[in-house]
Amino acid sequence: MRMDIKEQLLAYSSMTEQALKVYLSDEKIPSDFREVMGYSLFAGGKRLRPALVMGAAELCGGRSEDVMPFACGIEMIHTYSLIHDDLPAIDNDDYRRGRLTSHKAFDEAKAILAGDGLLSFAFEIMLRAALTGKEPLHLLRAAEDIAHAAGVQGMVAGQWVDVRSEGQQLDMETLEYIHDNKTAAMIVGALKAGAHAAGADEPAVTALARYGRELGLTFQIIDDILDVVGDQKELGKPVGSDAANQKQTYVTRLGVEGAFAEAVKHTGEASAALEVFGEKAVFLDQLAQYLLKRRK
Amino acid sequence: MRMDIKEQLLAYSSMTEQALKVYLSDEKIPSDFREVMGYSLFAGGKRLRPALVMGAAELCGGRSEDVMPFACGIEMIHTYSLIHDDLPAIDNDDYRRGRLTSHKAFDEAKAILAGDGLLSFAFEIMLRAALTGKEPLHLLRAAEDIAHAAGVQGMVAGQWVDVRSEGQQLDMETLEYIHDNKTAAMIVGALKAGAHAAGADEPAVTALARYGRELGLTFQIIDDILDVVGDQKELGKPVGSDAANQKQTYVTRLGVEGAFAEAVKHTGEASAALEVFGEKAVFLDQLAQYLLKRRK
Repeated sequence: MRMDIKEQLLAYSSMTEQALKVYLSDEKIPSDFREVMGYSLFAGGKRLRPALVMGAAELCGGRSEDVMPFACGIEMIHTYSLIHDDLPAIDNDDYRRGRLTSHKAFDEAKAILAGDGLLSFAFEIMLRAALTGKEPLHLLRAAEDIAHAAGVQGMVAGQWVDVRSEGQQLDMETLEYIHDNKTAAMIVGALKAGAHAAGADEPAVTALARYGRELGLTFQIIDDILDVVGDQKELGKPVGSDAANQKQTYVTRLGVEGAFAEAVKHTGEASAALEVFGEKAVFLDQLAQYLLKRRK
Repeated sequence: MRMDIKEQLLAYSSMTEQALKVYLSDEKIPSDFREVMGYSLFAGGKRLRPALVMGAAELCGGRSEDVMPFACGIEMIHTYSLIHDDLPAIDNDDYRRGRLTSHKAFDEAKAILAGDGLLSFAFEIMLRAALTGKEPLHLLRAAEDIAHAAGVQGMVAGQWVDVRSEGQQLDMETLEYIHDNKTAAMIVGALKAGAHAAGADEPAVTALARYGRELGLTFQIIDDILDVVGDQKELGKPVGSDAANQKQTYVTRLGVEGAFAEAVKHTGEASAALEVFGEKAVFLDQLAQYLLKRRK
């Protein structure tokens, strides 16, 4: 009997939590360092990227257990990026998911180093797994997918352009660059890594990368919509009334309905990319629908 | 004819500069991002760690060209650590090697992201090289050596303990932990990576790791001595007169002469570790002597 999408996500998420806890319990790491990294790593994230690593691996004939180091690695990298984004010099956020951000709960130096630690630890875990795995070259390719996704032609480049563009009117090309790199790159990287780790062939990897890009853009648009809808509820203002001061997003450019229509379109493209897999891709297909309809 | 140690270091250093320039010229990376990463990467570093990667590889029968991605990777990681160390929240340094630090030349957000970028780029370069190299498993092992050296049981852990201990009286055990991790770990990692990349056997890798630890401790002690001697010249004060306010080092604990004697001892141990290699280890042996006698 097949699990439904929420149950499957929960199962992947709890496997990831368990494995992350084991990694973070290594006593060769200073205990207060583990505590500060763990504070952000166990802050109630959705574990979307680990689910994509495992889902892609299973779709391509692999086992979720075997790709766990890559699921954990990409989650550590995602977490480092949030810690550094929240810093006073960047987004200056005091809260994330209702809890104090790392630099508020501890201090800035610790938050910077916790981020650096998680990024380094991710690669150490993935490379150690590749060295000891049954198919080191498949796993090496997975690690390279994640390095590329997180890197200077991926997530951190998107973050760079986002920071550099602050306070400026963005053209559509720049907005797309930021979404493609800051958000979609790591989603694509998770899927490619899962597929490569499972020994998938290039047509399968390419199809998953296409799916991932569409999923990533959907995810970003829905995030932007939820931000605005949330803000408006809080502020009791009509949507878009302070557009001039707002960060540029699909919503500020197209309105909530226009942006949602765009998200629906991307979700359709995501489903289309999965057609080559037929029935086997049910988890990833349902996931796209689920992310389109999410309310938080 | 054998080159002397300075010529050999210069040769390694200029090979490294060339290769780093090629990596940084990749137009798929935003140009202003490359500029900010390059500002710190080309700031007149000694390129010690790349020289160790290449020296160890050649000692173990490899070629310096083949380990260049690892030489460049470890230099990028070293550079990221300096950029983040200099940040206001950590050491708050305005100058390094006579030039403005990254956050002073640009701003804090850019310095944080340049550091994150260099750390990510290093792994991307090394993993790409491993995937396309003749001996992917040897190169994978080299990448893992560097990940471990830079990571939460290595450099960033040393930095963590250093930051956490600021303003406290350090016991000898903590001081050694900081030196072993913040300084020696990356030196050991460079040597192991060079050796593993060249397909060295474990006794050779172990001997080089032993050498590296002694070299790293020597390097740190000489750094501490040069700091104090420099400061005293500047301030016209006798050594140790403001010991209560000083950062704890070997020098504050043992005095300049006592610390230097300690460095001489570590250099002797470094040489002893190379005995298994015989004459072939002349570069690394001379390097240890050279670092003991350096004046900057």
